[in-house]
Amino acid sequence: MRAAVVLLLLCFVTFCSAEPRPALNLMPVPASVQTGAGHLLIDTSFSAGIAGPKDPLVQRVVEVFLANLRRQTGMSPLDMQVTDSTKATLVIRADHPNQLVQELGEDESYSLEISPAGAKLNAATPLGIMRGLQTVLQLLETTSDGFAVPAVTIRDQPRFPWRGLMIDVSRHFMPTDVLKRNLDGMAALKLNVFHWHLSDDQGFRLQSKKFPKLQEMGSDGLYYTQEQVREVIAYARERGIRVVPEFDMPGHSTAWFVGYTELASAPGPYQIERKWGVFDATMDPTEERTYKFLDVFIGEMAELFPDKYFHIGGDEVNGKQWDANSKIQAFLRAHGLKNNQDLQAYFNQRVQKIVSKHGKIMIGWDEVLYPSLPNDLVVQSWRGQDSLAQAVQQGYRGILSFGYYLDPMSDAPANLTSEDAQRILGGEACMWAEYVSSENVDSRIWPRMAAIAERLWSPQNVTDINSMYERLEATSHWLDWLGLTHNSSYELMLRRIAGTDDISALKPLADVVEPVNNDVREETAPVEPTSLVPLDRLIDAVRPESSVARQFANSVDRFVASRRKDKDNERLIKVFLLTRNSSFVHYHSSLLREAEPLANNLSRVATVGLQALDYLDRGERPSDAWVMRQTSLLQEAQKPQAQLLLMIVDPVQRLVQAAADQKGPAAQEQE
Amino acid sequence: MRAAVVLLLLCFVTFCSAEPRPALNLMPVPASVQTGAGHLLIDTSFSAGIAGPKDPLVQRVVEVFLANLRRQTGMSPLDMQVTDSTKATLVIRADHPNQLVQELGEDESYSLEISPAGAKLNAATPLGIMRGLQTVLQLLETTSDGFAVPAVTIRDQPRFPWRGLMIDVSRHFMPTDVLKRNLDGMAALKLNVFHWHLSDDQGFRLQSKKFPKLQEMGSDGLYYTQEQVREVIAYARERGIRVVPEFDMPGHSTAWFVGYTELASAPGPYQIERKWGVFDATMDPTEERTYKFLDVFIGEMAELFPDKYFHIGGDEVNGKQWDANSKIQAFLRAHGLKNNQDLQAYFNQRVQKIVSKHGKIMIGWDEVLYPSLPNDLVVQSWRGQDSLAQAVQQGYRGILSFGYYLDPMSDAPANLTSEDAQRILGGEACMWAEYVSSENVDSRIWPRMAAIAERLWSPQNVTDINSMYERLEATSHWLDWLGLTHNSSYELMLRRIAGTDDISALKPLADVVEPVNNDVREETAPVEPTSLVPLDRLIDAVRPESSVARQFANSVDRFVASRRKDKDNERLIKVFLLTRNSSFVHYHSSLLREAEPLANNLSRVATVGLQALDYLDRGERPSDAWVMRQTSLLQEAQKPQAQLLLMIVDPVQRLVQAAADQKGPAAQEQE
Repeated sequence: MRAAVVLLLLCFVTFCSAEPRPALNLMPVPASVQTGAGHLLIDTSFSAGIAGPKDPLVQRVVEVFLANLRRQTGMSPLDMQVTDSTKATLVIRADHPNQLVQELGEDESYSLEISPAGAKLNAATPLGIMRGLQTVLQLLETTSDGFAVPAVTIRDQPRFPWRGLMIDVSRHFMPTDVLKRNLDGMAALKLNVFHWHLSDDQGFRLQSKKFPKLQEMGSDGLYYTQEQVREVIAYARERGIRVVPEFDMPGHSTAWFVGYTELASAPGPYQIERKWGVFDATMDPTEERTYKFLDVFIGEMAELFPDKYFHIGGDEVNGKQWDANSKIQAFLRAHGLKNNQDLQAYFNQRVQKIVSKHGKIMIGWDEVLYPSLPNDLVVQSWRGQDSLAQAVQQGYRGILSFGYYLDPMSDAPANLTSEDAQRILGGEACMWAEYVSSENVDSRIWPRMAAIAERLWSPQNVTDINSMYERLEATSHWLDWLGLTHNSSYELMLRRIAGTDDISALKPLADVVEPVNNDVREETAPVEPTSLVPLDRLIDAVRPESSVARQFANSVDRFVASRRKDKDNERLIKVFLLTRNSSFVHYHSSLLREAEPLANNLSRVATVGLQALDYLDRGERPSDAWVMRQTSLLQEAQKPQAQLLLMIVDPVQRLVQAAADQKGPAAQEQE
Repeated sequence: MRAAVVLLLLCFVTFCSAEPRPALNLMPVPASVQTGAGHLLIDTSFSAGIAGPKDPLVQRVVEVFLANLRRQTGMSPLDMQVTDSTKATLVIRADHPNQLVQELGEDESYSLEISPAGAKLNAATPLGIMRGLQTVLQLLETTSDGFAVPAVTIRDQPRFPWRGLMIDVSRHFMPTDVLKRNLDGMAALKLNVFHWHLSDDQGFRLQSKKFPKLQEMGSDGLYYTQEQVREVIAYARERGIRVVPEFDMPGHSTAWFVGYTELASAPGPYQIERKWGVFDATMDPTEERTYKFLDVFIGEMAELFPDKYFHIGGDEVNGKQWDANSKIQAFLRAHGLKNNQDLQAYFNQRVQKIVSKHGKIMIGWDEVLYPSLPNDLVVQSWRGQDSLAQAVQQGYRGILSFGYYLDPMSDAPANLTSEDAQRILGGEACMWAEYVSSENVDSRIWPRMAAIAERLWSPQNVTDINSMYERLEATSHWLDWLGLTHNSSYELMLRRIAGTDDISALKPLADVVEPVNNDVREETAPVEPTSLVPLDRLIDAVRPESSVARQFANSVDRFVASRRKDKDNERLIKVFLLTRNSSFVHYHSSLLREAEPLANNLSRVATVGLQALDYLDRGERPSDAWVMRQTSLLQEAQKPQAQLLLMIVDPVQRLVQAAADQKGPAAQEQE
């Protein structure tokens, strides 16, 4: 705990030497980068040597690094060996071993010096070595002389000590190979906490030996054995990632009750929940047997998961079962509890004691925030910065889980006293899995997770969005080497949807749309969404953020400003020509029927775009009637179809406006 | 043994009802297909039921099938369950269980009846069920009504009982996940023998507990544990694939001698071989300790590998160590052995007795063919059909491992008596790994292996090359669902080579080239090829067979014949425009320097092509001088550059010739 606070202090020192160098494509941008002259060639004779104290973790980390380096360069396993540190190309030294179990706030800093003659990576601990080796991998480039890393001096350390990714494996189960490749991605981006959301209404995903009916009746057979859990933890450990388990309680707990009805606040029987949302099923906080059960269960889990932190969820208790249960109401009165919030606080206090008894520190979502809890509690705020600020002002430590590329220190937290601010540990992105399966989960996490990783690692002044997007693009391709499927699954899914390998008429549309948000998706779903509904629609394949549309919008803005017939103009024309005749009729695919109106809209939008370009090209002002008609057409095309949004409509409207804003007489109206 | 012969007889019966239906994209083409009306919808409610005797293998096979079906359709693991056979969409019945260990010649036939109301899959054994379920997966299509399989009646059985793929894991080690995905590919194509080439001069890849120095000193640490071997065998078993191990002896055995010098015919010491080729190191067939060692070793392996067949290699013994060893020469004289061939035959006889003692039947390459061996020996012929015919005429059984999409019954075997012909068991493709790594091995095997699989499974009259190529293309994409990397690794490797994610200037060239053959590659290698040389050149990334060039050539021929400005004409122009300005200078990549002359050649060829099209378009005959100049330029462009061949040169020459063959006066010579 004290170590964490000291590190936090370090993190908030301003990095005067911070020189973000986007040209290096590093993500997250290191705290300090000084470029040198020339580069260090990386060929088959490249070697890594370990100086300093012998540490099996460092040895293993270097082997993982070399395997990655060989993959990126196509070398044989016989090339690039670990060698004597006096002769090695890259000399690695960690001053101290890490804690046996990775702790919050352990030193992750490193310094990396690369010259044409060799490289040195120094760190206080193996964690710093792991971070520095990822920087080396990211620096690798193909040059005219061969593979190389540029001469550079980097001093680097994280801004926040808690940089996490939560994956919900309850609503859709994710096999361990999916988790492992995502752990590889996390390590690549210097993330250090895998928050494993293991239970929810839709499934209890872990083997309990004390209470086997949890997985036997609560998982449809889709759960991790304890052996697999240990394997995942060991895999994460080698990558400098802590594994924090979450067992959501007292709400979001239907799956527990299928096997153990006696834990619930209403008689049951219970079935595994197939729908999404907030359900009534809630643990009974008034029965001692509930705490006896949790004591044994948490004891078992505390042994299985070595991390110091233990997440008890605690979110979204709707209180309906409590209200309807007269025994529970009597308990409230007998104990002077005013309402359900008080009752949940009572529950949390009891659970906190159990968690603490088993040597762990409790984390919970916003809702656990209640004055009477011990202040080593960590609050994970999914409600935003205000809620986060409130938690740390009450003396708790907090983690932000809200917003993309947002700063945990912006908005309300920006006004915190420095003492309070120190209690902000960092942040986590949450991959809730209502609409995410093993097949598309990577594409929902990556590459955008890299932007969050940068927010949590890099100095606060690293905020250039354009640079971020450029490096994000490069990072996305870099991650392909780790076997992440965010790029490769896209075309596969499109081919399935098209029902043919020729997706030339589908991809241009898929490239410029984005899914509606999950709330809208739920409200407007064509069939009631459940865990049985396949995630094989177009909305499941397309990317959450269209980079084609983003670049298109940038091109529009630059073109409108300059009116030059350059690359931007070309890009616009290319997109319009590719999409002008969008139609899916010839695919004969049931999966594309819902998207036919979308294709028609896109076709119309492209036609409008071409006409607007034509007006601009001729310097002719369109008639007001034309402008009105196109504007109304574009407004229509803004509406979601197949739960997808056409992301180029807004920029096309700007083209239309630019044409309309031209000086001179309006063109003759043509019919 | 008898069972196998009976099955062979069945296989050679003419399939009068054979109706190859390329429209169905089935590969291999089944023995008999009758299409019906309509289709059977495959949605979340699809279920499979197992009728007949309870068999855990069938249960497991159906689970693997459903997992594949869910992957192809994007369904949840909660969809598509195994259910009561009276209610199931697909009712599966195997009359008998399989042998405990899969045997050569076990019944693999099946019948599949699909109607809009449901489907039935019947087979004598679970092996037939496996084959039939692959047919169901291959029949899946996206229709306007949803996923479906067409109404169809199929009766199917293999032509040959031995349909194999050999993978050399000695020259480049292939981890088990590479093997497993290739086993999935084999199962998809109804192949049934994985021949595992486990030892060679460059590495001994398997853990021996009796002689641990084999892997400890002979593998660079790159070997399979016995646990992993059992895992691979079990994985293969569930897919109806036998696993035949090969330990090459007495030649190709340097890796054995690193740890056990005493086995060799010359004193040593020995190092793991890094180069390719035929080496001197050979076992000493004159020492009893050699046979004692082999007895213990083969005993250990006979227990580990359940298959009845055991491959002892036996190829390419150069005899130099034997010639140079006076003790061995004395042995020859003392035993009346005339030459080294006699000595190897003596060795083979001794080894055969050991193999037989441990309950196995010996296989060897061509060279083991020698009259005095017991006739249960199987000869694997890499020398071709003549050698195969010779083997079976001498009473041995034979497997062909030579030539692509070739028939084991063509050439010399076509003239065999039917009794001799029955001893031809089938064939195997051999993936030798001098120039193949985990990264590109899939692309060297797939999709072409599917054509060989068809040759070995389908009736002899299935020989339509155009249909084959069309179905091969579809099959290639189908295999993507299994995680095979033949398609996905291509762009990754090109990006590494280009040193950037923008491969738009590289891919058009990469798409129309093919590697020189391995002999030429070896002779003209820029640096001596060894196992330490990375396989990251352009030659390692490009496909062994360019489908773009093949389609281009077809388009040329059709265009020359028709002169119509249709799709063929468009295709030619597209290829020419994409490649006319080929140059790699702007990539600044050392890996592309060798290919710059190739890019220049391609650019010139494209220009010639465009000019020839122009002459044809105008109906104008080019001058003789022009024709001569272009012909000479094209001849120059035929020469390999960067060990790659431009596959569109020949067709462009045909365009030039077509232009020259036009009637009328020649055009004015232009300079």
